Amino acid sequence: MNRRFVSDGHLVDSGILPKILNVIIQEGAEYRIVAFKIGQTNLQPSHLEFELLCDSDEQLFSLTKKLVQLGCYEKTLSEGLIRRSEIDGAVPDDFYSTTNHRTEVYLDGRWQEVANQRMDGVIVITDRGPECRLLRDVRKGDRVLCSSESVRVFPPERDRQSDIFSFMTGEVSSERSVDVAVAEIAEDLAEHRAAGRKVVVVAGPVVVHTGGGGALGDLFRGGYVQGLLAGNALAVHDIESVLLGTSLGVDMKTGRPTHEGHRNHLRAINTVATYGSIAAAIEAGALTRGIMYEVVSRRIPYCLAASIRDDGPLPEAETDMIKAQARYAEIVKGATMVLMFSSMLHSIGTGNMLPSWVRTVCVDINPAVVTKLADRGSSQALGIVSDVGFFLRALRDQVFRGAPEKAESRS
Amino acid sequence: MNRRFVSDGHLVDSGILPKILNVIIQEGAEYRIVAFKIGQTNLQPSHLEFELLCDSDEQLFSLTKKLVQLGCYEKTLSEGLIRRSEIDGAVPDDFYSTTNHRTEVYLDGRWQEVANQRMDGVIVITDRGPECRLLRDVRKGDRVLCSSESVRVFPPERDRQSDIFSFMTGEVSSERSVDVAVAEIAEDLAEHRAAGRKVVVVAGPVVVHTGGGGALGDLFRGGYVQGLLAGNALAVHDIESVLLGTSLGVDMKTGRPTHEGHRNHLRAINTVATYGSIAAAIEAGALTRGIMYEVVSRRIPYCLAASIRDDGPLPEAETDMIKAQARYAEIVKGATMVLMFSSMLHSIGTGNMLPSWVRTVCVDINPAVVTKLADRGSSQALGIVSDVGFFLRALRDQVFRGAPEKAESRS
Amino acid sequence: MNRRFVSDGHLVDSGILPKILNVIIQEGAEYRIVAFKIGQTNLQPSHLEFELLCDSDEQLFSLTKKLVQLGCYEKTLSEGLIRRSEIDGAVPDDFYSTTNHRTEVYLDGRWQEVANQRMDGVIVITDRGPECRLLRDVRKGDRVLCSSESVRVFPPERDRQSDIFSFMTGEVSSERSVDVAVAEIAEDLAEHRAAGRKVVVVAGPVVVHTGGGGALGDLFRGGYVQGLLAGNALAVHDIESVLLGTSLGVDMKTGRPTHEGHRNHLRAINTVATYGSIAAAIEAGALTRGIMYEVVSRRIPYCLAASIRDDGPLPEAETDMIKAQARYAEIVKGATMVLMFSSMLHSIGTGNMLPSWVRTVCVDINPAVVTKLADRGSSQALGIVSDVGFFLRALRDQVFRGAPEKAESRS
Amino acid sequence: MNRRFVSDGHLVDSGILPKILNVIIQEGAEYRIVAFKIGQTNLQPSHLEFELLCDSDEQLFSLTKKLVQLGCYEKTLSEGLIRRSEIDGAVPDDFYSTTNHRTEVYLDGRWQEVANQRMDGVIVITDRGPECRLLRDVRKGDRVLCSSESVRVFPPERDRQSDIFSFMTGEVSSERSVDVAVAEIAEDLAEHRAAGRKVVVVAGPVVVHTGGGGALGDLFRGGYVQGLLAGNALAVHDIESVLLGTSLGVDMKTGRPTHEGHRNHLRAINTVATYGSIAAAIEAGALTRGIMYEVVSRRIPYCLAASIRDDGPLPEAETDMIKAQARYAEIVKGATMVLMFSSMLHSIGTGNMLPSWVRTVCVDINPAVVTKLADRGSSQALGIVSDVGFFLRALRDQVFRGAPEKAESRS
Repeated sequence: MNRRFVSDGHLVDSGILPKILNVIIQEGAEYRIVAFKIGQTNLQPSHLEFELLCDSDEQLFSLTKKLVQLGCYEKTLSEGLIRRSEIDGAVPDDFYSTTNHRTEVYLDGRWQEVANQRMDGVIVITDRGPECRLLRDVRKGDRVLCSSESVRVFPPERDRQSDIFSFMTGEVSSERSVDVAVAEIAEDLAEHRAAGRKVVVVAGPVVVHTGGGGALGDLFRGGYVQGLLAGNALAVHDIESVLLGTSLGVDMKTGRPTHEGHRNHLRAINTVATYGSIAAAIEAGALTRGIMYEVVSRRIPYCLAASIRDDGPLPEAETDMIKAQARYAEIVKGATMVLMFSSMLHSIGTGNMLPSWVRTVCVDINPAVVTKLADRGSSQALGIVSDVGFFLRALRDQVFRGAPEKAESRS
Repeated sequence: MNRRFVSDGHLVDSGILPKILNVIIQEGAEYRIVAFKIGQTNLQPSHLEFELLCDSDEQLFSLTKKLVQLGCYEKTLSEGLIRRSEIDGAVPDDFYSTTNHRTEVYLDGRWQEVANQRMDGVIVITDRGPECRLLRDVRKGDRVLCSSESVRVFPPERDRQSDIFSFMTGEVSSERSVDVAVAEIAEDLAEHRAAGRKVVVVAGPVVVHTGGGGALGDLFRGGYVQGLLAGNALAVHDIESVLLGTSLGVDMKTGRPTHEGHRNHLRAINTVATYGSIAAAIEAGALTRGIMYEVVSRRIPYCLAASIRDDGPLPEAETDMIKAQARYAEIVKGATMVLMFSSMLHSIGTGNMLPSWVRTVCVDINPAVVTKLADRGSSQALGIVSDVGFFLRALRDQVFRGAPEKAESRS
Repeated sequence: MNRRFVSDGHLVDSGILPKILNVIIQEGAEYRIVAFKIGQTNLQPSHLEFELLCDSDEQLFSLTKKLVQLGCYEKTLSEGLIRRSEIDGAVPDDFYSTTNHRTEVYLDGRWQEVANQRMDGVIVITDRGPECRLLRDVRKGDRVLCSSESVRVFPPERDRQSDIFSFMTGEVSSERSVDVAVAEIAEDLAEHRAAGRKVVVVAGPVVVHTGGGGALGDLFRGGYVQGLLAGNALAVHDIESVLLGTSLGVDMKTGRPTHEGHRNHLRAINTVATYGSIAAAIEAGALTRGIMYEVVSRRIPYCLAASIRDDGPLPEAETDMIKAQARYAEIVKGATMVLMFSSMLHSIGTGNMLPSWVRTVCVDINPAVVTKLADRGSSQALGIVSDVGFFLRALRDQVFRGAPEKAESRS
Repeated sequence: MNRRFVSDGHLVDSGILPKILNVIIQEGAEYRIVAFKIGQTNLQPSHLEFELLCDSDEQLFSLTKKLVQLGCYEKTLSEGLIRRSEIDGAVPDDFYSTTNHRTEVYLDGRWQEVANQRMDGVIVITDRGPECRLLRDVRKGDRVLCSSESVRVFPPERDRQSDIFSFMTGEVSSERSVDVAVAEIAEDLAEHRAAGRKVVVVAGPVVVHTGGGGALGDLFRGGYVQGLLAGNALAVHDIESVLLGTSLGVDMKTGRPTHEGHRNHLRAINTVATYGSIAAAIEAGALTRGIMYEVVSRRIPYCLAASIRDDGPLPEAETDMIKAQARYAEIVKGATMVLMFSSMLHSIGTGNMLPSWVRTVCVDINPAVVTKLADRGSSQALGIVSDVGFFLRALRDQVFRGAPEKAESRS
């Protein structure tokens, strides 16, 4: 039960080589290195070839899966094993499940790249080639990739430039100055805007409660962000803060609880419901600033995904989770940077859809949120533990310092 | 702009009296006590009458709202102000928004109790009397209660018995022995079962990850719980742990990551999808134990509310949030005890629907969850900071110690 | 076993009245209200007289203790019970242990105020009158107050002005804008400086790691703070950041880990050790800015209390905890405001020494710290959950905005 | 400015190889692999030789330091650079500061192992060979190792057996079943006892508050632990719980706050002070069970390090931090396993003294504690996030299940 595997690339500095060898030992199998050529300098790739020695077919089967996820592929190339789905929404038992890394399948005698890469999907072979698909979107008769024998995965290589992402990734600590992170992200935002690339923001209502709503609105207004993924609560509290000057019933200016108490969010919902929609309220001149104002009036794509704990929800909220996930996926498609502010639920939801090569930054006052995001597979996320209100205002100031003409209407 | 208010009940030991006077001072108004008769012993109610002196109509209007929430009502009774809704899903601007406390409205010359009490609703006057309703369920033409002048709220009085709820409520601390709480809740569960009352559990997947799944299943099997409110993930990880012996890809017995890695939850979903549903998988003999097995095979009412971060979801998951909220509300109706285990999202969602007189216990390893639940209005919740796996097993052992004949199949 | 108690003051709006009645019920005793006169307006005090009915002497004894802590005193005044200590550092079994609230003892026919009020002390009757003393400072032969029968405690009344302390106390939440708190504290600092009152800062090394060191130094330089209580680590990391430009080995400007790695704090310690002391290093021109520079060169009283986890420690660190506590107590004496930044250990240590009428603000990114401080008795502390680096810089900016001439050397 | 380095050992599966190459890139230097021979199987070591190309002497100097910490050493061996200290407690500027990994110095033509390895020390060359020493213990005239050119560090290799330490290290998650960890640690404890090896426990007062005191006492009584490192508070609350049946004033049996309130810890201190010491109280028969009873009566070495926040402290507490650190170091010397329960301060203090090859387990309900311990250099610590009371009782039960004859007096 031996099998020979090959792996190429930046195996050493990316830390993948030890992972390969360790997984074999942990599973109780053995390896014999056949060849290893290390890149002489950091620009040259390495090449590894090894013999895997297993006790059983089951062990071989399971180890192959794991090795493939680490970028190994079998030396003796064989065509991808394809089976047809027999039921809508289900696939054969030995289906290949995807990671969020770039993936190729050996089909028709050549490696073919998988489209729409995301984690926790299956691969369907269509006329256009192999594609990632959610289990629920598989239809009876679809040709589903099974086994992992003919798959090649490209785990992300460490960014060779010494930028913030290369050295901060994986660090989660509240005890570091976040100024450096603010500066680097501001620079990234400027570059993205200049290059016409897509930045998407995921945001929770804490953005509003901590006084970061104005700064986030400014980033939309300045053309730095091209999509908003949130829940119903972000919009409700944003609109409450604009219409009634409170957030969770606390006066945003004086910090004092106000007369309407903590029920003000219901008044905001009722106001929007009276107009019929956020868009209608804007059109009628009832809503004239804030995050949702910037997003809706500038026709920036957004989705407010409803949840079980929502009041309202607002007319614009998407209450069907299948549709909400589809809309999220559509908005996030093609994004090269995603900023997540204080929303574990929507951040994990978005992280599930992102390929691992998208720059992802997650800012939260709670270190557990960042840890959880990485645990759930979005290991590319740079975690910053800070006060999100302060952070957003510092980011806005830094961004507009580089482009002051945009800053006229800061709040 | 003076107005005379009255309040009766256990104003002193419940701590309501200082709240009444402080809110007046905080809002910048003044009061003059007209009469105060304190209950001579703790069994006798107190009676308060005071003159409220305001500077403006706006202040009077806003303070009245707050005083009503604290159980005051105007001395000169007047009929409730009713306006008709002019649009589906919206109400007049000055609508009365509900708390989760028992509430009465003065209508037709008498105090009438509001049905279906919950927080963040409006009150509609129907032929059956006043009823709580969600904003979105209001129809054009409905008779909506406006202003708070003719409303009387009964904030919860401290339980006079010295039980765990009376002295632990409000405490959130990981530095207390939880043994006492386990013992008291076990006793409560036994009493509820004996009396045929309804207990509902809200649970997150951490129950499974921490090894508490077997214990929770036993509580359902033993007839101690009559409803389950959860998300898709609880069911997925429960079924994964039963079918594949792993939780998040970690072997539940050895604690070692297993060959299928963290994608095992997808295999669980695919298995269920292949059978068509959890119920079908049980019927086919493919699923023979675990939380969902106990719940589905015993026809215990449940709802799995989907969310934006779900994989799958399972066929039984409710993907529409409007329907999920309706189903949650239906299941929780009439419950006299709700136990919440490690799910902030679903706990807050459930808390929103509960009247404040339902015993609510929230167990989580993260103190912030308990704090947040109370912040969101479910101030009756008893928070216990502990390891939920250990807690559930201790609770199960304690419950079955009192009723050992039920304990045959513990796992 | 009945006894008659009296209480006067703002019993209602301070929330003390319900506490009095509830403690009686919780202990299983009963009360009968003899008289209750509520203050007609919020400026008038209330008066309560009640009969306490107990089952046993033990219950009476224990309840009396608790009632006294809530401000009740026995109607039939009797002289304080005094026993002599028979051993150095120990007192008779029934000794009275102090709270941090203002306290009086009935001696020589009149109420006498206790000096040096702090929690967890005993009361010794000296020639100057009753004084708080630590157990360990009691000497054989000292006259120690025993029992609580002749003690009168004045729990803090809610500040009647609607300032930040009156409405924020007790709130711990990261989801509120901290801008309001910054503004109010800045105003307080300005008032304290103008009035020549004493402000003391407690600070942990996170102040430096998060980039708040310059701002804190500015507050000392500006004359806004008159004492510093910290540990060895604050000074080490402050000096490291100034001498080597790093904090925990991370470059403060670029955010990148630097060549000397995380051992730079040892180099800072060695440098100071080479000069002999921080003061000598300053004198030699080796240390020219930073927190310790400002404090030492301005002769602002400070104490660096060593701990079991210290490296070094620096020559100025006080390694004996008895002496460190004495020095802390000396520095904090007479302070009317204490600001605590990210140091649970030193904040609790300081909190133990503070009378409850000192304004205390605790800023930490971790909500548990604030909760713990209150749990340990410093219930007067206003907790602010935020990023302490951002917070300090915002506070500095706000303070100097009101007094711009002081701002020249901000860093 | 080139230099040739060599490294041998399990470079690949331990993950050290990528670290070596990455640190060179991050510092802006370059490398050229001269030779790399990978171990053909996981039992064979690898061998690496590379040319380091630097731009400046400073870069070379700093990179050498870092490479040495990763186990590299210069190919052209030269004698260690030694300078004499000119002042007590200080060393020359270019001193070598230690890690907690096994270290050798090239002296007298051969590699010599450093004694008393610990982090953040310096190396003094004595007649017995090189030794780790604290900066403050260096005396004028001592021969201090400078520069890192002739140093060889052995970073810990991953344990090749697939035990809990090899796969759990580095994981910090509350969402895993801790049962596996309990079982493995129980087995380890049994093995240690059988082999006569030394286990030391670090414990905070939360052990008592959460009801784990009896279980910890049992472990001492059963001969499973040979040393206790704690603060004053652990002993105070342990003695309080035994003498008065409360912990922080809460009755351990009923969970109810008791008559003496939260001042009971003062009574415990006073009782011990009356007897003169814990030992005297035990001898007098006043203290007959609990953690301190087991430890003191069995003459198990212990140290109670005082801190700035202590009440008392107890006579046995060590109030001088220099002495406390020395006593901690003495007790921990030779330990092969250290268990840390809920005490960040004492755990970090102990971690500072431990060589990296000592098995270290840290149990705390707060994930931040475990993270911080690793951040401070004790990266070998296995973190378990759980309720420490439940954990200790489960551990005790598991330990005594394997050795039931010891279990007679569990409480």
